[in-house]
Amino acid sequence: MRAANRKQALIPEGAYVIDPVGTAPGVVVPGKPAVVVLPGPPRELQPMWRTAVASEPVREAIAGHTEYRQEMVRMFGLPESGLADTLRDAEEGIEGYGELEITTCLRRGEIEMVTRFEPRAAPVYAELLELLRDRHARDIFSEDGSSIDDQVVQLLASRRIATAESCTAGLLAARLTDRPGSSAYVAGGVVAYANEAKVELLGVDPVLIERHGAVSEPVADAMAEGALRRFEADTAVAITGIAGPDGGSEEKPVGTVCWSVQLADGRGLTRTVRLPGDRADIRDRSTTVAMHLLRRVLSEPAALTPVAAASGDRATADPASARSHPR
Amino acid sequence: MRAANRKQALIPEGAYVIDPVGTAPGVVVPGKPAVVVLPGPPRELQPMWRTAVASEPVREAIAGHTEYRQEMVRMFGLPESGLADTLRDAEEGIEGYGELEITTCLRRGEIEMVTRFEPRAAPVYAELLELLRDRHARDIFSEDGSSIDDQVVQLLASRRIATAESCTAGLLAARLTDRPGSSAYVAGGVVAYANEAKVELLGVDPVLIERHGAVSEPVADAMAEGALRRFEADTAVAITGIAGPDGGSEEKPVGTVCWSVQLADGRGLTRTVRLPGDRADIRDRSTTVAMHLLRRVLSEPAALTPVAAASGDRATADPASARSHPR
Repeated sequence: MRAANRKQALIPEGAYVIDPVGTAPGVVVPGKPAVVVLPGPPRELQPMWRTAVASEPVREAIAGHTEYRQEMVRMFGLPESGLADTLRDAEEGIEGYGELEITTCLRRGEIEMVTRFEPRAAPVYAELLELLRDRHARDIFSEDGSSIDDQVVQLLASRRIATAESCTAGLLAARLTDRPGSSAYVAGGVVAYANEAKVELLGVDPVLIERHGAVSEPVADAMAEGALRRFEADTAVAITGIAGPDGGSEEKPVGTVCWSVQLADGRGLTRTVRLPGDRADIRDRSTTVAMHLLRRVLSEPAALTPVAAASGDRATADPASARSHPR
Repeated sequence: MRAANRKQALIPEGAYVIDPVGTAPGVVVPGKPAVVVLPGPPRELQPMWRTAVASEPVREAIAGHTEYRQEMVRMFGLPESGLADTLRDAEEGIEGYGELEITTCLRRGEIEMVTRFEPRAAPVYAELLELLRDRHARDIFSEDGSSIDDQVVQLLASRRIATAESCTAGLLAARLTDRPGSSAYVAGGVVAYANEAKVELLGVDPVLIERHGAVSEPVADAMAEGALRRFEADTAVAITGIAGPDGGSEEKPVGTVCWSVQLADGRGLTRTVRLPGDRADIRDRSTTVAMHLLRRVLSEPAALTPVAAASGDRATADPASARSHPR
């Protein structure tokens, strides 16, 4: 046995050992406070945490505790400061607001707002939720914990989707096929990294690239249309952008990304947004925007005629509601 | 200010505050022992750790400490138990072995062995490294900390690569384009998730799919050849496999993956391996195997003629040296 293993086998006197899920064990040390020590990797931590909570010293430590309720609202297209403003108003306007423990987290371009409260504060949470809906109806996409991926999977049932990706280079296709059974609705995609690939594999007219640049709405539309055709799909998403750190210009700085979502029946929408962050952030965020645009097209197709879309337009800082490309 | 923020602003009396990199602050509490408290996200933790180490209480706590050296060896294709056997022999055979603090970690299908030692133990480490080279020369791909991605990027300079992916659905293309400047050597790829896409976009003969199944070496070869042709590339990698949880059979259980790496000059290699783990593991691991096969083809092309490959064959449990497909 090596020193590194021997070290892992040392435990404090009187401690309970939590059997390892991976290779590292955990311990619960009884006392006031009781101390729980667990390995960090989530897939080891989470099951071992459940075991730890069930152990005698922890059950004793939390005896008589309050059961909290926890609710989650997910938003997209709203800056964190916009939510902060609303929460400040809620603090002033909603009686009992202090009984809500609210955590907000910006994750992959979405805001997750988690609220924990004792059962008696449920009406206070209901009032907060009303205020959120009043102010941010368009940005709230989930009140039940479901993720955008959950929702897009639902919307794709009985559909056939294809992707055409440049800067994300397969990340969107990989994300769409993350779930078991995705072969039921994913046909495939083209990673058209080089311009020649956009022309040869997606049938993009080279004149469009020359005239508007590879990162442009006309090219994004042509990529999506090419994907529809080549894969005989009924739904297509194209992404072309500048992930950086090089390749930006004054007109199209790093982070400029164009999306096109097209359905076989001719409806669709096209967006251009400048995303913040580094290369990895921009690539990852681009797939999140694509998922939200997909959700919008698939869940409210009637709102996508040019007139309706124009009336719903807002600032371009909001990726999901930036200007609509008339078709 | 909300309760959640107020809580974040509380610090123990006499503690040093480490300014946040994200939104969460850190503290250093002087004393014996000195206590350092930092947020968990690596991109916040790492810079704040450096600040914490430079603080008065930590410098005091570690005054007179020894400077350790740290070396890393990366291996692929060797089971962890094989390395453990060698380390047991090292413990018996190498004098001073106890002065090395060795940590081994299985990460994305590779073994990382990190060794820390005081400068005077450098000859002991040198002896250990000799033993590792004797036993596992084929499996060691890095002794200088470089990753397989670093090495493949080097090998792809002045080349033009295309991918053809089924079960990984874009993950390999995304990995190859992870680095800035990758447009210099990545042409693009096809995510051929549906069989029709393999036929239509990569020119795979449907008879091959019917005869051998979509997850087979002949289909992997045809996908790679299609990618070479369609993207006018000189290097192509194809991956087709069963990521699960459904779709496995007795003959081809979940985790069965075929790879084909082909160069425009006709050289190449084809492999079939059964990978362990869940859907996400299998998809991720498949890209790692692809990177190692690419490295092998690009760095030792002379060894890839059928005769040489046959003499180097080992058990199929070793992904990088499973049976060679004669071409």
